[in-house]
Amino acid sequence: MRTLKVDLGDRSYPIFIGSDLIGDSSLYRPYIRAGQVMIVSNDTVAPLYLARVEAALSGYQLAHVILPDGEQYKTLDVLDLIFTGLLKRRFDRGCTLLALGGGVVGDMTGYAAASYQRGVNFIQVPTTLLSQVDSSVGGKTGVNHPLGKNMIGAFHQPQCVVIDISTLSTLPDRELSAGMAEVIKYGLINDREFFLWLEQNMPALMARDPDALAYAIERSCADKAAVVAADERESGQRALLNLGHTFGHAIETGMGYGSWLHGEAVGAGMCMAADLSARLGWLDQDQVRRVDNVVAAAGLPVRPPEGLPPERFVELMAVDKKVTDGQLRMVLMKDIGNSVITAEFDPEALEQTLYGN
Amino acid sequence: MRTLKVDLGDRSYPIFIGSDLIGDSSLYRPYIRAGQVMIVSNDTVAPLYLARVEAALSGYQLAHVILPDGEQYKTLDVLDLIFTGLLKRRFDRGCTLLALGGGVVGDMTGYAAASYQRGVNFIQVPTTLLSQVDSSVGGKTGVNHPLGKNMIGAFHQPQCVVIDISTLSTLPDRELSAGMAEVIKYGLINDREFFLWLEQNMPALMARDPDALAYAIERSCADKAAVVAADERESGQRALLNLGHTFGHAIETGMGYGSWLHGEAVGAGMCMAADLSARLGWLDQDQVRRVDNVVAAAGLPVRPPEGLPPERFVELMAVDKKVTDGQLRMVLMKDIGNSVITAEFDPEALEQTLYGN
Repeated sequence: MRTLKVDLGDRSYPIFIGSDLIGDSSLYRPYIRAGQVMIVSNDTVAPLYLARVEAALSGYQLAHVILPDGEQYKTLDVLDLIFTGLLKRRFDRGCTLLALGGGVVGDMTGYAAASYQRGVNFIQVPTTLLSQVDSSVGGKTGVNHPLGKNMIGAFHQPQCVVIDISTLSTLPDRELSAGMAEVIKYGLINDREFFLWLEQNMPALMARDPDALAYAIERSCADKAAVVAADERESGQRALLNLGHTFGHAIETGMGYGSWLHGEAVGAGMCMAADLSARLGWLDQDQVRRVDNVVAAAGLPVRPPEGLPPERFVELMAVDKKVTDGQLRMVLMKDIGNSVITAEFDPEALEQTLYGN
Repeated sequence: MRTLKVDLGDRSYPIFIGSDLIGDSSLYRPYIRAGQVMIVSNDTVAPLYLARVEAALSGYQLAHVILPDGEQYKTLDVLDLIFTGLLKRRFDRGCTLLALGGGVVGDMTGYAAASYQRGVNFIQVPTTLLSQVDSSVGGKTGVNHPLGKNMIGAFHQPQCVVIDISTLSTLPDRELSAGMAEVIKYGLINDREFFLWLEQNMPALMARDPDALAYAIERSCADKAAVVAADERESGQRALLNLGHTFGHAIETGMGYGSWLHGEAVGAGMCMAADLSARLGWLDQDQVRRVDNVVAAAGLPVRPPEGLPPERFVELMAVDKKVTDGQLRMVLMKDIGNSVITAEFDPEALEQTLYGN
């Protein structure tokens, strides 16, 4: 088992990474303050893993809420199911929420924990690669609003995160690839050595080699933790984590949510960011090719969808959250493993990237 | 104008107290970071004061959301109206929410500000005595759930609080009295000198003398601020602020919300706490009488309602939030101006207080 400490002062917490951890009672118990534990999961994950987590927590006053699976249920209304479950059982301020599932379950459980009686403890047990390398670190929790994704939420750190690599054995291929987009992203942002490792080891990762996965997840979490520790509330450098996301969000919104997975859109978005960086003279063509190759080796698209015209892209990017004072800020690459946040790029170069000429 | 600083490290903020402040542009402007300001009010207060606040904020990108007036609208559903208003106008992370109204508006606006894009700024303009002396300090925000009051929320501090005494001229007598319960509470908790002042000045306060009101509000906020500064997240001493509230909540719940106002229930609750303290030998009969007299002079009840049998009281108190590990903790008085949190009291004395013999 690997243990990584996320260093955030008095909100620091450990991430445990390894095989067959989900049923390991000793990992949870030190982080449960009082007797009440509410497990929140969804109707895909619960049939697979709920019983094992419950067995590991025998002796506590246990309850669970099973949410419907899917991003469309990441709403205030569905969140209320968690509050109702807690209140019906008279769970008090000393209770602990345990998120068992992917990013949606983690985000909603975390926000419920941030809000219930103005804040209770929670433990994350992420069961998808994306949530293991993304939601495990950073404390971002929340729900969607019909008018915008993740518009309602809180920063709330977990007591601990238990990443059981074994749960990835039940993950569909397409979701494994989608999670890998974020793994690649960490290499490109600030960890050149990790990128080189990924170039060598992507086949092993896609074959779900446990050692390779454990290493990649730990390194991803560590890279993200370093960025978050420097900027917990996202006022500056944390925006580096949006590499590929400005293009990616435009793809997701433009194609309709659910058509492209988030990770697929980010995969293509990182290749577009590399292309734009090259047009600005920051990357050479060989570096752009290497980015494309790793993204493709992860089973991800390297180009935006045909069905999204460039002028629509521009429109969608203009409403992105990263627009401040009317200026679009993008994360681009000065080198592989050296990304920067910048509003100073030639709009013509951006157009060339979008029009692909 | 009086200015009080609430000292909470990098979340410190000023409270401005005086007459005719609501239209004073210079009080708001230093605390508005970017151009967008969303005023949240209700359909009772908005017709009286919205235009003056809007005039004071001319030049900003202004919008408003008017909620229906009443505790029954302090829900997640109504909260969503604020999020929808913000998103429809594309308000970004730099926006400021301004709460114009009583406690319900303040709690909901504060929670909306805590949650919108995971946290934006807000300014409080409380227009009732209760909200001026209670919600102005402490950062507690939130909404009710059908299964419990204030069960969903966040700790979120405002940028500044503007208390315009003049708004109290439109406050119904019964609500003035209800607010005065909390004022008296601060004297009883830890400010004996203030209690002596209240014994002398209650007639002036009830006659709405502006100078007396400004002094009482400032002193109340300062007393509360001292308790909160020592315990921002309510892990210990902050529970002193619940003096009279364990009895009070039982009265509110037992009689049905809205039958007794919160302040009325707290008024009677403080007298009951004094009675119980005397039965434990901590107060003498003269002190109990003085508590009763001040509460009565504020136009508040000094005894619980006839319609609430003692056995029902016991039942209601057992589910109070202040029950930890099955033990009921109460705030009782060792002296006037010296309250303590204790679980060590004779249950028989409590019964005697409830049965009034």
